[in-house]
Amino acid sequence: MKKIHNFSAGPCILPQEVFQKSSESIIDFKNSGLSLIEISHRSKDFVDVMEKARSLVKDILNIPSTHDVLFLQGGASLGFLMAAYNLMAENKTGGYLVTGAWAKKAAKEASFMGNSVIVGSSEDKNFNYIPKNLNIENNLDYLHVTSNNTIFGTQIKEFYNGNIPLACDMSSDIFSRKIDVSNFDLIYAGAQKNMGPAGTTLYIFNKKILGNSSVPIPTMLDLKTHFDKDSMFNTPPVFAVYASMLTLEWLKNNGGLNVIEKQNSKKANLLYNEIDRSSLFKGTANLEDRSTMNVTFTLENKDLNEHFNNMLANANINGLKGHRSVGGFRASMYNALPLESVEVLVDVMKNLETKKG
Amino acid sequence: MKKIHNFSAGPCILPQEVFQKSSESIIDFKNSGLSLIEISHRSKDFVDVMEKARSLVKDILNIPSTHDVLFLQGGASLGFLMAAYNLMAENKTGGYLVTGAWAKKAAKEASFMGNSVIVGSSEDKNFNYIPKNLNIENNLDYLHVTSNNTIFGTQIKEFYNGNIPLACDMSSDIFSRKIDVSNFDLIYAGAQKNMGPAGTTLYIFNKKILGNSSVPIPTMLDLKTHFDKDSMFNTPPVFAVYASMLTLEWLKNNGGLNVIEKQNSKKANLLYNEIDRSSLFKGTANLEDRSTMNVTFTLENKDLNEHFNNMLANANINGLKGHRSVGGFRASMYNALPLESVEVLVDVMKNLETKKG
Repeated sequence: MKKIHNFSAGPCILPQEVFQKSSESIIDFKNSGLSLIEISHRSKDFVDVMEKARSLVKDILNIPSTHDVLFLQGGASLGFLMAAYNLMAENKTGGYLVTGAWAKKAAKEASFMGNSVIVGSSEDKNFNYIPKNLNIENNLDYLHVTSNNTIFGTQIKEFYNGNIPLACDMSSDIFSRKIDVSNFDLIYAGAQKNMGPAGTTLYIFNKKILGNSSVPIPTMLDLKTHFDKDSMFNTPPVFAVYASMLTLEWLKNNGGLNVIEKQNSKKANLLYNEIDRSSLFKGTANLEDRSTMNVTFTLENKDLNEHFNNMLANANINGLKGHRSVGGFRASMYNALPLESVEVLVDVMKNLETKKG
Repeated sequence: MKKIHNFSAGPCILPQEVFQKSSESIIDFKNSGLSLIEISHRSKDFVDVMEKARSLVKDILNIPSTHDVLFLQGGASLGFLMAAYNLMAENKTGGYLVTGAWAKKAAKEASFMGNSVIVGSSEDKNFNYIPKNLNIENNLDYLHVTSNNTIFGTQIKEFYNGNIPLACDMSSDIFSRKIDVSNFDLIYAGAQKNMGPAGTTLYIFNKKILGNSSVPIPTMLDLKTHFDKDSMFNTPPVFAVYASMLTLEWLKNNGGLNVIEKQNSKKANLLYNEIDRSSLFKGTANLEDRSTMNVTFTLENKDLNEHFNNMLANANINGLKGHRSVGGFRASMYNALPLESVEVLVDVMKNLETKKG
């Protein structure tokens, strides 16, 4: 089988052993003679999977006992709504830092059952930076931020650490670096980047928020519903949870966040250094806000795009097309992408310069 | 590998070729050198999967052009909420036929943004029958029913066919028999019975309901959001949709609903005949309302339970434990369960009678 360098923005590359083990589980799960996807979600074998997945999250992120973990459905897009429902307090007002398309959508859902206030926005420059001076007033029940902006290639390096409860959509950089979970009342993340395949969404929350919203919450959108039933209120997305558990196992067995954070910096530095050195390429994100996960860049001479795309295809590089709202190129370098793939990309970039620079 | 007879209530047995093909896709999807679960959901290969899955549903159920099909997330439990949001009209009132635990939960969600009126209930007899004379008043915006009650082993044989828009949770018997889709404004179903693995939920709806609700709907709960984006508003549950597509392909290639409906009747008759003939067993559901999918029964002499359970285990029969709210036994006989498995079960029941009758 040819080796593909998969820079997709998500769903994205996962560890090869996750593909292998999850593929085997579909044929025969734990030598039971049954497929993972045909057993009851109430069977001991699957309850063990769910509990192990939750416990690996706690272990890897060093989550304090004040917090708990759920694997639900709906993606971060449903998370926008759940975050607002579960965090509304006496002022029924959430503050939103708008650093991209997803952050903007999150703010919209809060206005469904309360008010959303924009505390900062980088829309004036097509979201190419992270606003630093936020307009935070006392009437906010919570502050919502998006840690990493997949489309625009920016990332929050330092989180708000004040009195207002902090919520974070961490879909595209959770498990890529160390974070202090105690600083957040709610973290949520679609699985399909560093955690697993599409189809499940992780919620990490301070248990003190459960049952304390000031607005009525439909059953399925209330974190307490799912917490009370150990993340099994209704049938969970079995395969996605299992493959996430395998990915978390891989992460833990390979040194956890200490090791992966260094590895991710190494990959990002390699690529950003080439972008900055090369006479042909230009990064689109503000230097200090550059994401280690999604590197966005353009060719200054657009006439070279086609040639570069052909070279990428010949090198078996996949998924480098930039999002339509930024254009150019985007290299998503999630945990499972090997350094070697970034080296191959950088070589192609150097070759382009040699030929056309 | 030992042959297991899997009578699980859902997640449940799927066709062997679905296990085989979906397992292979995790290693290498369409000879791309990439796993199904690492490619972009916007790639042509996955868009083709989604479109084929939607089109197979239309084809198999003979869906008229007035209706359309989506594959979403959240399970039928989120469907309870979405049904109510999308069907509320000028009276903000839904009528609910309460034939089991799930139907009751559906009614509860409607009272979140409107009123729910119980038009009939069989709770007086632990849901062992389907009420026939419904108390339907003119102020109902819609009537909600549950076609099959997995826990209690009852099934609606004839659907309401009047002026009030009809909504149906068809999670546990969709694709088991022919239905007239034009009679329903909304059908929804968790995949994990006849359609595929857990993790996706099917919505079939008359397009005239889109955008016509009398209540504001959060973005992700509005069917129009997903319809406008061809079921790809946000990242879909890739694996669950793919395995559902494979299961639908299997169903179509094996003769579709005409063939499967006869096969399901044959399996149900075989087991019900044995329950009625045997001196030891008793069915729990009202005769005329018996489900072809979930057969609920008890041993009249409880002292035989342990012995019967041992015999079931020795025959490699899995998943026959009844739900705690009914007790006894439940044989779930979804589309992919072969007749042979029912024959093995009936043999064990006969053997018990020979030994202990």
